[in-house]
Amino acid sequence: MQAQHSPDVSPELFWDTMTAYQRTAALKAAVDLDVFTHIAEGHSTAANIAAAAGAAERGIRILCDSLTVIGFLNKSGANYSLTESTAAFLDKRSPMFLGSAIDFIFSPQQRRGFDDLTNAVTNGGSSVTGDASMDPESEMWVTFARAMAPLMFPTAQAVAANVGIETERPIKVLDIAAGHGIFGIMVGQKYPNAQVYGADWNNVLAVAMENAAKLGVGDRYHTIPGNAFDSDFGTGYDVILVPNFLHHFDAATCEKFIQKLEGALADGGKILTVEFVPNDDRVTPPPSAMFPLVMLAATPAGDAYTFAELKRMFENCGFAHNEIIELHPMPQHLIISTR
Amino acid sequence: MQAQHSPDVSPELFWDTMTAYQRTAALKAAVDLDVFTHIAEGHSTAANIAAAAGAAERGIRILCDSLTVIGFLNKSGANYSLTESTAAFLDKRSPMFLGSAIDFIFSPQQRRGFDDLTNAVTNGGSSVTGDASMDPESEMWVTFARAMAPLMFPTAQAVAANVGIETERPIKVLDIAAGHGIFGIMVGQKYPNAQVYGADWNNVLAVAMENAAKLGVGDRYHTIPGNAFDSDFGTGYDVILVPNFLHHFDAATCEKFIQKLEGALADGGKILTVEFVPNDDRVTPPPSAMFPLVMLAATPAGDAYTFAELKRMFENCGFAHNEIIELHPMPQHLIISTR
Repeated sequence: MQAQHSPDVSPELFWDTMTAYQRTAALKAAVDLDVFTHIAEGHSTAANIAAAAGAAERGIRILCDSLTVIGFLNKSGANYSLTESTAAFLDKRSPMFLGSAIDFIFSPQQRRGFDDLTNAVTNGGSSVTGDASMDPESEMWVTFARAMAPLMFPTAQAVAANVGIETERPIKVLDIAAGHGIFGIMVGQKYPNAQVYGADWNNVLAVAMENAAKLGVGDRYHTIPGNAFDSDFGTGYDVILVPNFLHHFDAATCEKFIQKLEGALADGGKILTVEFVPNDDRVTPPPSAMFPLVMLAATPAGDAYTFAELKRMFENCGFAHNEIIELHPMPQHLIISTR
Repeated sequence: MQAQHSPDVSPELFWDTMTAYQRTAALKAAVDLDVFTHIAEGHSTAANIAAAAGAAERGIRILCDSLTVIGFLNKSGANYSLTESTAAFLDKRSPMFLGSAIDFIFSPQQRRGFDDLTNAVTNGGSSVTGDASMDPESEMWVTFARAMAPLMFPTAQAVAANVGIETERPIKVLDIAAGHGIFGIMVGQKYPNAQVYGADWNNVLAVAMENAAKLGVGDRYHTIPGNAFDSDFGTGYDVILVPNFLHHFDAATCEKFIQKLEGALADGGKILTVEFVPNDDRVTPPPSAMFPLVMLAATPAGDAYTFAELKRMFENCGFAHNEIIELHPMPQHLIISTR
């Protein structure tokens, strides 16, 4: 541009970030129109993909070129094909299909929070209200439950594999803000002796019950409808799952809630918390370090907590032993807390 | 996740792209609140930056951590600092400040097109109307003219350097869809013997005239208001600038328009076209190969054309000589066409 600056100085990151929202929109359109699935089924030219998708050839040609630039597709001559990762995660017929997650992550409600991000930074919290994360019986959590189940499957399987209980006696499992129910259901699948209790808003629990029935634990699935802070969970739980819940609240509220869970936990029981856990520097690793921005956009006071912060919360509630486990390649961590 | 796939298979690109819009929103909030400028002025902790920006410390802390993850800031302990590129392009006091471009690229109008991208792919063109790119006297082009001038400065300087006319006689320069006017103005600065004619909607030309006056060519700046396809440009132009115009239209319309320009060009005159020019594969280089998506979202039939396609358009209109020049590090190309 000008000769006076070093060759490392470049507007590239600015350009890339300024236009990043266009890449999310391209991915959303591709998922909406099943473009990846049509390609997986053998449609390879823009004309053929367009015919299969019921879309215009110009639209598909431009979309598929963009998806190639972004890295989801390969292009050879006029033929598009899926990369190995796209085939695994974005072909609807794949058991690892994750595409529906974008229906929540890029939903109108989530976007509304980010459209208002300047105000959230100014005010220190989201002012988005109505149909939003903190409202009772919000439809947002039904969208969440339906869209996010596939993304949570591998995480939930990894969590179930780490429960580490060996007993033949009946066990009680509580799943906080169950949503899709996948975390509790996976533990239920692994432990045929488990009774699983899902706590969430009533409208959301309908999705959890659907999934429980589909995944073969419907007859051992129970529901506790209402606000998690007010509901009576009962007592005697061997395992309490707290997946993706604490980040919606400030540390004092989290601690108050953990205290409530402590009262519901059986002797020798454990709490399994799933969270985005940034390192102490708060700027690594990328997905966890970016997550507080989502909470700034969507909640009044949520955050992502470091392991030191989570440990302190649990210690203050009587949990002397806290262990953190990576759930690679998924970006979250599991924290196992015992008294 | 599962053990059956190769280690190269990862949901990382999916996650990154699904959340990419959040990075654009973070950059927009930072530009809105002059965060980069406050840091450049010596505010380095979240508390100090927040005080300077009139924002909440929680908001600034989360925003600055995100900007660090994205790569705009460095963080050491609790202190944030600008990278060299951020200092060059995002500190308002820098002569190379580009930040305002996001006010257009991420404007409500542009976002509206991308919010509707699935329909644009289905229909083969944008159905966004009202206050949009093809409407007469659209306010969108005033936003464009105000926001994009800084981003176009280095490109326009490079174009002016490539005019390649050496004469003392008076010359006439026509700037098509002048917008901010910067392309014509830069040529006017380089050639004190030039009279510059800016063609655009009347409301947009007010911005061009402002800039012409500010940059010292106000007394040699003339305006031709109206729709470029209908306006009478007059004749005898030595240089016709066509910056970022052709991509809004289909190839047949472009050719018809070039024919009109041919009639306005003096003997020995040249047309200088600035465009995003993808390679023949249409998937490289990234910024040019992504640009058709913007035209899909915003126009009925626009596109980015390869050099072969542009060459054919100009040849069909009597321009036998066409040369393409890179404008590195800016992502666009200059095409010089002569008879």
